[in-house]
Amino acid sequence: MTESKSSDFILLLSSADRPGLVSLISRFIYERGGNILDLNEHVDPVEKNFFIRVSWNIPDPGVSHEELENAFRPHADEIGASWKIHQSDRKTRTAIFVSRYDHCLHEILWRNSIGEFAVDVALIVSNHADLQPLAERYGIPFHLFPVKSTNKHETEEKELELLERNGIETIVLARYMQILSSGFVERYPSRVINIHHSFLPAFIGGNPYRQAYERGVKIIGATSHYVTEELDQGPIIEQDIIRVTHKDTLEDLIRKGRDLERFVLAKALRLHASHRILVNGKKTVVFD
Amino acid sequence: MTESKSSDFILLLSSADRPGLVSLISRFIYERGGNILDLNEHVDPVEKNFFIRVSWNIPDPGVSHEELENAFRPHADEIGASWKIHQSDRKTRTAIFVSRYDHCLHEILWRNSIGEFAVDVALIVSNHADLQPLAERYGIPFHLFPVKSTNKHETEEKELELLERNGIETIVLARYMQILSSGFVERYPSRVINIHHSFLPAFIGGNPYRQAYERGVKIIGATSHYVTEELDQGPIIEQDIIRVTHKDTLEDLIRKGRDLERFVLAKALRLHASHRILVNGKKTVVFD
Amino acid sequence: MTESKSSDFILLLSSADRPGLVSLISRFIYERGGNILDLNEHVDPVEKNFFIRVSWNIPDPGVSHEELENAFRPHADEIGASWKIHQSDRKTRTAIFVSRYDHCLHEILWRNSIGEFAVDVALIVSNHADLQPLAERYGIPFHLFPVKSTNKHETEEKELELLERNGIETIVLARYMQILSSGFVERYPSRVINIHHSFLPAFIGGNPYRQAYERGVKIIGATSHYVTEELDQGPIIEQDIIRVTHKDTLEDLIRKGRDLERFVLAKALRLHASHRILVNGKKTVVFD
Amino acid sequence: MTESKSSDFILLLSSADRPGLVSLISRFIYERGGNILDLNEHVDPVEKNFFIRVSWNIPDPGVSHEELENAFRPHADEIGASWKIHQSDRKTRTAIFVSRYDHCLHEILWRNSIGEFAVDVALIVSNHADLQPLAERYGIPFHLFPVKSTNKHETEEKELELLERNGIETIVLARYMQILSSGFVERYPSRVINIHHSFLPAFIGGNPYRQAYERGVKIIGATSHYVTEELDQGPIIEQDIIRVTHKDTLEDLIRKGRDLERFVLAKALRLHASHRILVNGKKTVVFD
Repeated sequence: MTESKSSDFILLLSSADRPGLVSLISRFIYERGGNILDLNEHVDPVEKNFFIRVSWNIPDPGVSHEELENAFRPHADEIGASWKIHQSDRKTRTAIFVSRYDHCLHEILWRNSIGEFAVDVALIVSNHADLQPLAERYGIPFHLFPVKSTNKHETEEKELELLERNGIETIVLARYMQILSSGFVERYPSRVINIHHSFLPAFIGGNPYRQAYERGVKIIGATSHYVTEELDQGPIIEQDIIRVTHKDTLEDLIRKGRDLERFVLAKALRLHASHRILVNGKKTVVFD
Repeated sequence: MTESKSSDFILLLSSADRPGLVSLISRFIYERGGNILDLNEHVDPVEKNFFIRVSWNIPDPGVSHEELENAFRPHADEIGASWKIHQSDRKTRTAIFVSRYDHCLHEILWRNSIGEFAVDVALIVSNHADLQPLAERYGIPFHLFPVKSTNKHETEEKELELLERNGIETIVLARYMQILSSGFVERYPSRVINIHHSFLPAFIGGNPYRQAYERGVKIIGATSHYVTEELDQGPIIEQDIIRVTHKDTLEDLIRKGRDLERFVLAKALRLHASHRILVNGKKTVVFD
Repeated sequence: MTESKSSDFILLLSSADRPGLVSLISRFIYERGGNILDLNEHVDPVEKNFFIRVSWNIPDPGVSHEELENAFRPHADEIGASWKIHQSDRKTRTAIFVSRYDHCLHEILWRNSIGEFAVDVALIVSNHADLQPLAERYGIPFHLFPVKSTNKHETEEKELELLERNGIETIVLARYMQILSSGFVERYPSRVINIHHSFLPAFIGGNPYRQAYERGVKIIGATSHYVTEELDQGPIIEQDIIRVTHKDTLEDLIRKGRDLERFVLAKALRLHASHRILVNGKKTVVFD
Repeated sequence: MTESKSSDFILLLSSADRPGLVSLISRFIYERGGNILDLNEHVDPVEKNFFIRVSWNIPDPGVSHEELENAFRPHADEIGASWKIHQSDRKTRTAIFVSRYDHCLHEILWRNSIGEFAVDVALIVSNHADLQPLAERYGIPFHLFPVKSTNKHETEEKELELLERNGIETIVLARYMQILSSGFVERYPSRVINIHHSFLPAFIGGNPYRQAYERGVKIIGATSHYVTEELDQGPIIEQDIIRVTHKDTLEDLIRKGRDLERFVLAKALRLHASHRILVNGKKTVVFD
């Protein structure tokens, strides 16, 4: 999906459904000389909500991003929409939170290094020093915030200050083994992406591989979701699975699951960074 | 995808790409009181072709199907489009061609009986009598046309006459073991759906399971495609695969493949009958 | 897996692990002129239990099934094994319990009709009359036992009497919408196969498709398991999944799930009837 | 599959089938105090060949690897078997051949670094200098052999000399863009593992992603196989696939294919290094 030319824009919009929305949006684009490259639309037939993602190209000299947003605002206000116009060539400022496992961080940094993501990994936050060498190898600032039961609130405040100072837009929890407080999560609604190492809603909480091993399932999974206040209950972005058999030990489940985790998290980040996800209550609309 | 209300329409259209196409189409719908239910658009970035599927609802009293087509024709002519407006509640008149294997026919008739397809199976054609009882069980006329090397042309003429007389729009080759002539195929462009029992383009031609067994592949497949003059070369609609191991005998491959064949063919027919496929040269655009 | 010659045998055995078990079993077979066709062995590294499935051929004139079992009994007693020697060409006497949905029954009867299962479907039990015509089409006796809240115990007694009279060995719950009592289940340990329409342990209990729809999962599943006293907690035999998206309505989930249900249940029955499953506590060992 | 204790052995053996083989092998193990941990056996029903993999443990003080091989040799000779007894804790001396793409090398080195493979990556050979930094990061000697059309034979001689001097047992072609000569391949029969970036036998030869893009397939694949004299014709070890749609450009196919390539090659190497593969003519028996 090659939308990364310098004059490409992407609109993500949701609103209550009503006739004329596609017409309004496509005329807006056409009148400004835009040519639509890709358009996906969805109407939730139960909730009667409208969702759209449009990407379009404007030949130079085109309007600026700001001009576009200003021109679109009155239309959006009229229909009561939640919306944002993104520039395809602008990378999302991203922070990655990790603890000790390296597989997800490895995957994201390597993929990013070969240009698979439209993200700018601005910094890495960790409660352990283990992954500092990996961060340094990719030249990314590593910030150590040891978390103790007594300093959780203060630590989060420092982290938030760091994120704000660095203009962070998206946070990826790459097997970060701490639970963020509600206050923290509320600051980044639908912008904190987590990977849970089970096929949610099966095996919520701790030790999902052990739970899976003891239950004797024939398939294990991994789930990437936006973080909300309720643990493991946020809108699911992506899931994937792998078969296991009676031969697989707990260690085998963990090994197979590692592959799932890094792929599912990478896919979720890719979808998020290319502006393909809209939140619909407790669910997501993913325009893949 | 619940679009089957009595006043629902679906437009399938392709043309050369240019700015304003979505705007033109969506305005056309909006001006006639339509509310878009589902819209998918694709631009081939290499060939610069535009493809769209839109489904919309018009509250009663709405315009008729004919009025809609007449109103849209000038627009379509102007942009040089290939297009058709379908009524969601109108079933596609379908003929199924079979030989001796029952699995694909079984699958289609059963799925159709529980309402999974928007097809009206008007008749079954076969070069063998074996499946007549199955046809009768579902109350569908069964026409036996034994094919010999000496009468192929005459037989096809009779078949074509039968199809025309019955207003057949789509033909499904459900493991029909005869090769249709070019003349026959040309009469139903992008409207003859075949199932090939391999993962095309691997194992073209006869005995693909034996070829797969002898090559020692670890995965087998099935492919549904539109029939064109060149054998097994038509635009691919759907493919699926299943794992095999060294334990699987040729008979096991055939057994596992049966499941693939009936599922892949059923899915292709479902996509076709719900007007989700556009042909793009040697390929398909499938708005699933 | 072609083991269906008239003088083929299959041993399924489990016991505590200790050195010499494979040697003991393979020598036993060899000394009686048997040639091993397929052997799978597993040792649970945590519980230290031993599981084996061996199939072998004895050229005519061979020993009888009874002679083999009598000859093996002293060895099995010595190692304290649970075991059974099956004849490959002997079909398992099976009863199918259904309610109103026809897809699983359809699938099993059709597959059985083309020889995919080593089962003899002796009778069908239902609490509704809906599927009687389907049973009759395949010439299988259909027994209607309307279940009311007031007569559950008596009904089960009658069913058990019917099963016993017909020498039923295996019961398949093909979307049977009644919960069997503990007393019933205990009579057929590891011999009642159920299909649950979710990816267990997610969405236990009623309306799993609705639960899945509301949670917004990106994958749905189906699970076949042996029935135990605890609802949806029995040892899992087989699971499979299919992807869903935000476009899929609840009806789409049900439709996609139907395909999963019939495939997963059919596979579980196939594995069971070809004597490929051993129960290991709350789990299964499946020698596929 | 935890077989890596210091006194674990693995026998891989193939021979013509005849009664008594399992009995002979299992008795041999039992008589030396061994306890079988895992046993897989296969008889090719067409070719009448016998294949077995057995792993067993001998409590200390046990026999040595050499003693075991010497003791087993007369038995193997008698049945005319191809065989080898491996020590579970001994890592396979491996060389990786690369060109410019880093994804497969990255994957193998990272997985090896966290202990997923029983391999000792002794050296890396390349015809380009690009991946030298990656090799150095993992502390692995990197040998540059620029290949020109005029020096191919001499270069291979030098490479073979290097491999021999370093006791290399297995060679992994991790997207190595040179074709090895027959003479080279013959020196490492069933010990050179390649990754081909298509679902073989579809799209043999160059540019398989372009071929797939132009054919309009709905699924792409990758295939790992042992290298033989005939290009892309060696025994297949492992294959996997991923879905593509009309939206995927050639670049998307390459991106999605990268993930397949690294996973399929890694799995093949894992299977090979844990002694789970036997070659059966043009096919493999994989005891996964």
